[in-house]
Amino acid sequence: MDKPPYAHKRKGPPQRGAAPGGRPFRKRQYPGTLDDDGPLLVFGLHAVDAALDNEARTKIRLHASRNALARLTAPIPEGLPVIETTPRDLDRLLGSDTVHQGVALEVEPLDHPGLEAVDGPLVLILDQVTDPHNVGAILRSAAAFAASAVMTTTRHAPRETGTLAKSASGALEIVPLITVRNLAEAMETLKARGYQLIGLDGAAESSLAEAMMPATPTALVLGSEGKGLRQKTMATCDRIGRLALPGALTSLNVSNAAALGLYIAREKLG
Amino acid sequence: MDKPPYAHKRKGPPQRGAAPGGRPFRKRQYPGTLDDDGPLLVFGLHAVDAALDNEARTKIRLHASRNALARLTAPIPEGLPVIETTPRDLDRLLGSDTVHQGVALEVEPLDHPGLEAVDGPLVLILDQVTDPHNVGAILRSAAAFAASAVMTTTRHAPRETGTLAKSASGALEIVPLITVRNLAEAMETLKARGYQLIGLDGAAESSLAEAMMPATPTALVLGSEGKGLRQKTMATCDRIGRLALPGALTSLNVSNAAALGLYIAREKLG
Repeated sequence: MDKPPYAHKRKGPPQRGAAPGGRPFRKRQYPGTLDDDGPLLVFGLHAVDAALDNEARTKIRLHASRNALARLTAPIPEGLPVIETTPRDLDRLLGSDTVHQGVALEVEPLDHPGLEAVDGPLVLILDQVTDPHNVGAILRSAAAFAASAVMTTTRHAPRETGTLAKSASGALEIVPLITVRNLAEAMETLKARGYQLIGLDGAAESSLAEAMMPATPTALVLGSEGKGLRQKTMATCDRIGRLALPGALTSLNVSNAAALGLYIAREKLG
Repeated sequence: MDKPPYAHKRKGPPQRGAAPGGRPFRKRQYPGTLDDDGPLLVFGLHAVDAALDNEARTKIRLHASRNALARLTAPIPEGLPVIETTPRDLDRLLGSDTVHQGVALEVEPLDHPGLEAVDGPLVLILDQVTDPHNVGAILRSAAAFAASAVMTTTRHAPRETGTLAKSASGALEIVPLITVRNLAEAMETLKARGYQLIGLDGAAESSLAEAMMPATPTALVLGSEGKGLRQKTMATCDRIGRLALPGALTSLNVSNAAALGLYIAREKLG
């Protein structure tokens, strides 16, 4: 939704070190921020603090206004280049609609772990949910409800971007974002490990709470807002439940649905 | 967050009729879309369908691709100019990151009703929540949980924009968005009318469910993510409750918090 404008403009391979401190940034000079596997800019105080605190995160460079630097609470690793910048320069770098709070940390993307990272009683599975605001907010809720992982497909999955990291408000550094090639296969593996797979669908007969067995490890499965759960995904679930919505609209924003689903699942887990 | 790019570019007074059908749009020619009191562009199938269905909504012009026109379900009012357009033209008009689904309806903003529009057992009050994605998603949840209104302050309130309407997915046409000059005063009026005013704050001692009396008309009060409830707003609440979040992060995205709050309030209302 709010990709920085240079996402469409950069041409050619990433050029490291083309945005030296002191000089105003030039969009086209900036290294390959939004390449799938290239570095990205994490912005906003919470997101940057969390990334600084994350030992598994490779940090390249910190851009910060003097004011924002004073407001960061995480220790700045020794040897990390810190470039003093102005909010205006960051506006230019990230787009003026970006709420960067005067700070951006250039980082490498995280390694995405596999299924082995799922080790708690609550997991969230996203079937082709891609909007970075939504996936970010879902990661944040997953961290708040102590879910052990968020799983997505390798394709049709959100890329790790600054917008996702900002929406996650630090949760991107906390909750493993697992990507799998074959979602149905991964779901079967979880089933074999004792998880109940509960899909969320507005047309289900049972409520979500009714669809869940109490005190049972739970993987909650959500589809995209437009298309819902794919047929194969739905067929692989153990049971399907709906949210009880008494009003004129019968669906929620997907991150809102995820938050409610996590809340209800936590109650059933006891 | 994702304002169309022309929001920053338009100069001078609105020029009606400067974007005739057939010709590609020019950003600078487009009439005062984002003026506070001027017309706006509602985009996306759900949002446009709901606006077409809303008799209280003044419609000016419909821009739609042939494909999108066939997918709209609401009847198109007689006499409404329909301009056949292409997704590419709409990209240019709204910004290429906008999910317009091939359709945009130029409309006048709605009249915002006063406190008299509050007539059901559940109301949402927003204390300086301004992000249009969040306020849109909150309106959508309010419609889904049959809240009778969403109230905001006149200042520090979201403007009615296409982004807000899109995030609301039609709910902007359903749920009255009430604006009041003095929030504390309006809260006192609701109190006098028998509402319990329940604030949401992560530092509260009681859970939200504990803070609510059952079967009592409820106004749920939420602050902005950064600042929370203002002191005066908090002091005007009857009781304050928190969401039970067992994880590493202790707060949710504000629209997620609102959805959970509405769910819990509905359960208490019985």
